[in-house]
Amino acid sequence: MKALPKTRSSQTASLPKAPESRGPASPCRVALVGFGTVGRSVAKILCASPEGPLRLTQICNRNVERKKQPWVPKDVLWTEDFHAVLDSAADIVVELIGGLHPAGDLVRDALKAGKSVVTANKQLIARDGPDLLQLARACSCRLEFGASVAGGVPVLPALRTGLCGDRLHGISGILNGTCNYILSRIESARIPFSEALEEAQARGYAEADASEDLDGGDARAKLAILALAGLQTRVAPETIRARTIRGVDALDFDYAAELGCTIRQISRADLKHDILFAEVGPSLVPAASPFGRVQRNLNLVVTSGLYAGDMAFLGPGAGGDPTAVAVVSDLMFVAESLSAGVRSHWPQQFLEPKISCDFETPWYLRFLVRDRPGIIARLAEILSDHELNIDAVLQKPGFAKAALPFVITLEPCRDSQLHPALEKMAALDFCIKPCLCLPILP
Amino acid sequence: MKALPKTRSSQTASLPKAPESRGPASPCRVALVGFGTVGRSVAKILCASPEGPLRLTQICNRNVERKKQPWVPKDVLWTEDFHAVLDSAADIVVELIGGLHPAGDLVRDALKAGKSVVTANKQLIARDGPDLLQLARACSCRLEFGASVAGGVPVLPALRTGLCGDRLHGISGILNGTCNYILSRIESARIPFSEALEEAQARGYAEADASEDLDGGDARAKLAILALAGLQTRVAPETIRARTIRGVDALDFDYAAELGCTIRQISRADLKHDILFAEVGPSLVPAASPFGRVQRNLNLVVTSGLYAGDMAFLGPGAGGDPTAVAVVSDLMFVAESLSAGVRSHWPQQFLEPKISCDFETPWYLRFLVRDRPGIIARLAEILSDHELNIDAVLQKPGFAKAALPFVITLEPCRDSQLHPALEKMAALDFCIKPCLCLPILP
Repeated sequence: MKALPKTRSSQTASLPKAPESRGPASPCRVALVGFGTVGRSVAKILCASPEGPLRLTQICNRNVERKKQPWVPKDVLWTEDFHAVLDSAADIVVELIGGLHPAGDLVRDALKAGKSVVTANKQLIARDGPDLLQLARACSCRLEFGASVAGGVPVLPALRTGLCGDRLHGISGILNGTCNYILSRIESARIPFSEALEEAQARGYAEADASEDLDGGDARAKLAILALAGLQTRVAPETIRARTIRGVDALDFDYAAELGCTIRQISRADLKHDILFAEVGPSLVPAASPFGRVQRNLNLVVTSGLYAGDMAFLGPGAGGDPTAVAVVSDLMFVAESLSAGVRSHWPQQFLEPKISCDFETPWYLRFLVRDRPGIIARLAEILSDHELNIDAVLQKPGFAKAALPFVITLEPCRDSQLHPALEKMAALDFCIKPCLCLPILP
Repeated sequence: MKALPKTRSSQTASLPKAPESRGPASPCRVALVGFGTVGRSVAKILCASPEGPLRLTQICNRNVERKKQPWVPKDVLWTEDFHAVLDSAADIVVELIGGLHPAGDLVRDALKAGKSVVTANKQLIARDGPDLLQLARACSCRLEFGASVAGGVPVLPALRTGLCGDRLHGISGILNGTCNYILSRIESARIPFSEALEEAQARGYAEADASEDLDGGDARAKLAILALAGLQTRVAPETIRARTIRGVDALDFDYAAELGCTIRQISRADLKHDILFAEVGPSLVPAASPFGRVQRNLNLVVTSGLYAGDMAFLGPGAGGDPTAVAVVSDLMFVAESLSAGVRSHWPQQFLEPKISCDFETPWYLRFLVRDRPGIIARLAEILSDHELNIDAVLQKPGFAKAALPFVITLEPCRDSQLHPALEKMAALDFCIKPCLCLPILP
């Protein structure tokens, strides 16, 4: 969609128009912008229920002639021009082109033209969600983005309607299917990280440049959206610390198993008073926990509430059809809301807490050293100097002395207490590289 | 609440009144009928948010003087008379007394008095849900019952708003916390069934007479409600076959483990054309599956959709606070709907499929015999006569010959094909009792 014509945001600051009138019984007109995998699935579901409350009226995409499908009804208009969507009678615009540009301007233009918007765009919502919600409110429109987190897993709808009676204080999850595929493959086959990554790429679970997934950028955008929806907090995704999974290797699963654990990329956010503790990164989790059991590219979200305790939601976190279910469910919700004139369920204000990654947990430190006498003694001395307590020292036999891996686990301490010690240890001449440091989650 | 005064249902067939007018910004008035564990939790949550969209105005219970709590605001009216609730300005009545009588009449009277109803009453909804929804519609009221299944796990709200874009064809779950506590305790401690039951009773997870839980009555009522909400089918709960878990013993977990499985009480419903395949009972499930991993008294619901595939919802299936979250979430939804005049999301008609328990699965048959030569041969002959294929024969050493347990597993066949063979085998003189026959689920 990069060749889309210039959007209007910079040109016109048009006043919000009232949505065009539509009888409560007539179907809601839906324009689809972006006809990739998810877009096709959305169209398929909409066309399968021609009698339903939603009517697909327009599809906007580049190279529209090449995209046309015989199963799309003849009265659906195909266009390459987003202005034709803005000028149409569509009630709801579905934005499925992704990325910040031009998607952001398209969404803003649609809202300003009096059209409600449903989107699956995690980058856009993570960065601009609160502003776009405010714009939607000012334009008497609705904005929903249930498909932007965890694909088809109905977490955002459940937060909206099923857990609204609770007071949530924490959300955690396995939000990136690529990382979970790679880590669970290393776990089950004990293959090197690089081999698991290649396999994920070959199967279409990872892109050629998978940095956004591996280094946590994707997951922290989703975590920011979950914090917005579940904890009513406004969090810029780049303020959430993201640790890469690239340093995790097969031997870490052997050591983790000795501790009854496995390793997953975990995203977590805990609201305590006016601080949001949040981070994304590989973590040790009990092998028998819901997190430890998530295999392949599934997603898991766990909410923690004052009253209801922990709830877990598991399902396919990506894929055309599951994501399309989230989009269509949002469409039905918006159509219902528009016809009834329900006011938005989104709060007008979001909390703006301080963001911290200073969690207090036990830690797993895996060193890679040139072996010689006195290494443990020297590390123990540094840890002791920083008042950090060793819980266990694990050293498996059979590794070469020139690159010997071993593990020290620490009793709970804060991230900020640990890091000066890590820096000192990284500078020691026997350390081949800085140790891999993972939190051990309960 | 059994001493409540006679309800009006039999006396007056009063026409539906329109709900009393209420500005969109003024809070919704809530009357609580039943002030037990869940009722107290609901009141606590409502009173913790005095500025919210819901205002607790009335509490109705027997022995109201003994029930009064200092933390309930002074302007809340306490009464033992349900007529006072009907005659009040309450917008929504929360029915938390449970059972069919007098709860059913109370709900009907409330609807006829123009009051919307939120209830956690699984027996009532499983039996009369479609009729009560019709009455609610006729009275321009709303009826919601998210707390009637799986306690605080937001399954019904997720079906309503998050999976409405899918077309579901199956729902399965671990819906009874008592059975799951007992089975997972037998699994982990290899104690006899009777000991696990006593333990559950001592911990308050099972009643003195736990028949409703153990024999599947509770779970099939919940399954009927899930089928109503997720598959739009009207199912009388007593038409769903329920098998008891009483015959399952520790040695069955040993044999199940040899098959990579464990045993759970599974409720499942699959809609195929105009037949709803449904049943509740102990079943073998893979130990590593989401079902196999559910411990203690948690609940798990898995929905299967045409587009989104399988989604799993896990959480506390009972308890005052979690159930209260489901009630309060329903209250917020109803309050919003009432203020906006949204029409009910419930269909006007439900499918009325034929109900069948004739699932096609592999089977686990555990025999208890007086050992002598030729037993396997005789059983194999009967199975062969009925064209049933043996998959495996398992016999662990160390049991007395006078009461020898062993297992035969069968390749997939229909329930109806298997049962004539089971009857013949039960009549054999070496069988101490009919074999324990459990489906092996994928």
